[in-house]
Amino acid sequence: MVLRMSTLFLRTLREDPVDAEVASHKLLVRAGYVRRAAPGIYSWLPLGYMVLRNVEAIVREEMNAIGAQEVHFPALLPREPYEATNRWEEYGDTLFRVVDRKGGDYMLGPTHEEMFTLLVKDLYSSYKDLPLSLYQIQTKYRDEARPRAGILRGREFVMKDSYSFDVSDEAFMRSYEAHRGAYIRIFDRLGLDYVVVAAMSGAMGGSASEEFLAIAESGEDTYVRSPGGYAANVEAVRTPAPAPLPYEDAPAAHVEDTPDTPTIETLVDDLNARFPRQDRPWTAADTLKNVLVILHHPDGTREPLAVGVPGDREVDEKRLGAQVDPAVLEPFTEADFAAHPSLAKGYIGPGVLGEKNTSGIRFLVDPRVVDGTRWVTGADRHGKHVVDLVCGRDFTPDGTIEAAEVRDGDPAPDGSGPLETARGIEMGHIFQLGRKYSEALGLQVLDENGKLVTVTMGSYGVGVSRAVAAIVENSHDDAGIVWPREVAPADVHLVATGKDDAVFDAAESLAGELDTAGVRVIYDDRRGVSPGVKFKDSELVGVPTIVVVGRGLADGVVEVKDRRSGERHEVAVADAAEHLRELVTAS
Amino acid sequence: MVLRMSTLFLRTLREDPVDAEVASHKLLVRAGYVRRAAPGIYSWLPLGYMVLRNVEAIVREEMNAIGAQEVHFPALLPREPYEATNRWEEYGDTLFRVVDRKGGDYMLGPTHEEMFTLLVKDLYSSYKDLPLSLYQIQTKYRDEARPRAGILRGREFVMKDSYSFDVSDEAFMRSYEAHRGAYIRIFDRLGLDYVVVAAMSGAMGGSASEEFLAIAESGEDTYVRSPGGYAANVEAVRTPAPAPLPYEDAPAAHVEDTPDTPTIETLVDDLNARFPRQDRPWTAADTLKNVLVILHHPDGTREPLAVGVPGDREVDEKRLGAQVDPAVLEPFTEADFAAHPSLAKGYIGPGVLGEKNTSGIRFLVDPRVVDGTRWVTGADRHGKHVVDLVCGRDFTPDGTIEAAEVRDGDPAPDGSGPLETARGIEMGHIFQLGRKYSEALGLQVLDENGKLVTVTMGSYGVGVSRAVAAIVENSHDDAGIVWPREVAPADVHLVATGKDDAVFDAAESLAGELDTAGVRVIYDDRRGVSPGVKFKDSELVGVPTIVVVGRGLADGVVEVKDRRSGERHEVAVADAAEHLRELVTAS
Repeated sequence: MVLRMSTLFLRTLREDPVDAEVASHKLLVRAGYVRRAAPGIYSWLPLGYMVLRNVEAIVREEMNAIGAQEVHFPALLPREPYEATNRWEEYGDTLFRVVDRKGGDYMLGPTHEEMFTLLVKDLYSSYKDLPLSLYQIQTKYRDEARPRAGILRGREFVMKDSYSFDVSDEAFMRSYEAHRGAYIRIFDRLGLDYVVVAAMSGAMGGSASEEFLAIAESGEDTYVRSPGGYAANVEAVRTPAPAPLPYEDAPAAHVEDTPDTPTIETLVDDLNARFPRQDRPWTAADTLKNVLVILHHPDGTREPLAVGVPGDREVDEKRLGAQVDPAVLEPFTEADFAAHPSLAKGYIGPGVLGEKNTSGIRFLVDPRVVDGTRWVTGADRHGKHVVDLVCGRDFTPDGTIEAAEVRDGDPAPDGSGPLETARGIEMGHIFQLGRKYSEALGLQVLDENGKLVTVTMGSYGVGVSRAVAAIVENSHDDAGIVWPREVAPADVHLVATGKDDAVFDAAESLAGELDTAGVRVIYDDRRGVSPGVKFKDSELVGVPTIVVVGRGLADGVVEVKDRRSGERHEVAVADAAEHLRELVTAS
Repeated sequence: MVLRMSTLFLRTLREDPVDAEVASHKLLVRAGYVRRAAPGIYSWLPLGYMVLRNVEAIVREEMNAIGAQEVHFPALLPREPYEATNRWEEYGDTLFRVVDRKGGDYMLGPTHEEMFTLLVKDLYSSYKDLPLSLYQIQTKYRDEARPRAGILRGREFVMKDSYSFDVSDEAFMRSYEAHRGAYIRIFDRLGLDYVVVAAMSGAMGGSASEEFLAIAESGEDTYVRSPGGYAANVEAVRTPAPAPLPYEDAPAAHVEDTPDTPTIETLVDDLNARFPRQDRPWTAADTLKNVLVILHHPDGTREPLAVGVPGDREVDEKRLGAQVDPAVLEPFTEADFAAHPSLAKGYIGPGVLGEKNTSGIRFLVDPRVVDGTRWVTGADRHGKHVVDLVCGRDFTPDGTIEAAEVRDGDPAPDGSGPLETARGIEMGHIFQLGRKYSEALGLQVLDENGKLVTVTMGSYGVGVSRAVAAIVENSHDDAGIVWPREVAPADVHLVATGKDDAVFDAAESLAGELDTAGVRVIYDDRRGVSPGVKFKDSELVGVPTIVVVGRGLADGVVEVKDRRSGERHEVAVADAAEHLRELVTAS
């Protein structure tokens, strides 16, 4: 079927939409692929829906190739299964909730772990039934607080989600590796520039996980990489703990008056002025900053937590948040201070936290705070700090936590060199769910010895509609989109220019030949539209090969242009169809 | 890809699900195609999703073939466009409503007229852009009061809906006919036993419409047909009006005491006892029954309406309701009687309705009540009836209405013989929307003379998920489903029986050959499952061709069985792949 510009439901726009900030949002709207219907909710126009279906087809092929079986759950889901796993509550405002005419509670599914788990429980009962991988390509819903960037982060979007079911952790690892391989093939075929990073699993509640990020400045995810090949989501970076230091010769801790030191900077200046060190000046890295937060647990309880980090680093709330998930971070309020009178605001130190812990508050420190390290920190009295406080001698934290910011130049945990930060778009996520859902919902099978074992699950997601935007983020120029061939809405954008009937006749016949040869064609058959407008549209729409039938026809040639490189060459009109068929098949 | 029963995510059931009443519901659940997730909400298992996608593919091909272009709207829709057409209210409890985290009103789309109209308004502006037909295959939502029959009437379901946009009514008729042709091809290819009937358009607000009904006892729609080929939805049947009768010689109307005649039957008995007629006895057909109802209009107002029908017929609420749509019928209450003191309950007659109309209530009569017809009816006084009341002489109704029941034996309006009623499943609906939506939402284009004209629209729907059930209703037997080949999940169900390795080796190799030849295969490779169970499963699953590799292999043959006819024949194992490829291609 030849797509004719004269009838194609498409109007390209010369102006960027006013609400668009990122390239994919601008270009997909301007080139007529998508259209906003409501905040974070988009309609797919004909070309856009073709691209979306091309992405779906690639995902489907690769999932089928690893033996995963396609099913399709409803998007409107009953409350009960999500109640059993506590996610009805945990999702909070992110969940679109629906009440039916009989007062029954429903939700628009943001993810389907519960439904898959219950379905397998319903049908399967033996180890012989496993391994099993099921997937669906389904519309999902999340009521994002700030939907942004067009279809990059929408409130209604298409995802492929799959789930693996295995009788043991060893068997699970094979399912995980199969999915990992499929994901690499999917993202390769989508033409994405991507990186696989170690990741926290977030609300999914698993233990091991990796993310596939499309490398893009416009991405919302920050990750780090090292020259030696280490890559991780910032939330997942593990800080290498230094070896413990000897502290036999360390001076005893001593409390000092430190008036007028409202910040770490003023404290450090004060130390250098009044207690200069021989070997090197005091720096913020010598201080231990103790930050108080409240963990709001899913069961509604509020737990205070103290986090100690070197004073030269900020607490990264995303990193801290990922560690305490599913609890949610809240500020430590004046009322909380009032409830813990032993805390001296601004001067919180180990007297109440890490030594005898009179406050009763859990105290977790950065992994750099190892035995033998010496610190300047609050003395639990207003206007006073304690100096030469030695970890393991003068205070003992309750454990460590990854809460400090990661900075460019920090060492990679695997020794592969200094880290640098970069940004990406989360395109895929594969993770070990373990037995969280199978335990909560009672998915067990009989093993070889007739004993009931709880099934080990994996969960795997691909952002299908998001991929359309991510591909554009990765692949565009000033003139428009540059589609990789396999996802492009057509192979060839055939432009007839001028007013000469012979040109339109030749183009028409070439379009027909290409169509017959299985080459997908957009044919710009519009009369009375200038060549300039037609060229601009072809660049904006972004089909990989542009063919111009125009003035050259008098010499028996048409022009073939590669959209990505801009390279042009002429081909005899008689050979054009075969030439293009070969070009399309080869690339 | 060969589907292997040893790993296919499928468990057939021997028992019908307890909530299932119709064959398609029972069989689709028992054969492992669908599974209930909530009332009226189903999950598609692997075989079911294959069939659904096969149906989608047929619909897509035929829509593309008439030049309709595929788009995809969100399922979660903003309130505003539906507010403009009043449908946010009109849909009432049928609409699933959603409030987002910012308090914004949304709905799960039951149909998308408004969204399509606004999109075309957004992009198009000239008669040169038309004709245009757009479609989508989309998940729709209706909070049915009584979801029933599995996926036959669900609350989440898949529909193809399309819309045509034309500059004139004449141009619209071409779009309508194109869709009509496509629908005939779709339902033919789906293998449905169907009928095209004239229909009311219901809440869609159009003027001309036809329905495609799958003929099935389990259907919810009643339609009528005549030997001469007339077919109509009961709501759409037009009663032929008899010619007016002369009434110069008719006696004057006379009021009679009719005590103890609480029913029409007792009234007729009383008339025959006390006022016997020479030529023929009184029957219920001589009486005029005046029924009072309230029309609840979308703007909230309540209007009383009197409907007069011959006393031998009931008022059919579905027929009456269809005539007054979008108003909704409500009972005429005691309070309504109190508000109209001129009405004598049980004896309502033309004194207050049709003569001087002292009640102010609109009075519509059955089309059989023509000038010159004589009636016995209420005399507007308790215990009294009026006899020999002549329409056009003694009373004048405000018009006619199709409210009386249609009965077997009634004449077809086109003179094609007596009607008989039958039941069907609404599979498709095509109708002229006219300018209802384009006017409400301001969709206009410039015509050839530079004048703004309002666009004429058509609306066309196919129940895609419902088709899966309707096909089963049309095509099953006691043993299971009998799929038409094009929608079947596979072409061949290959069964290996016994314990002999040679059998499994031969079956395995035949499965591979068929797969290579493009024949879609389910291969029952299960070891240790009895032949009886395998045969039962193959009949239940319903693939058109069943091939058994078993004892015959010793003689070099396999058995080929036609699922529909039950006919069997043997084929040499060496020729089996080619034989089956030809059989599949031919059918």
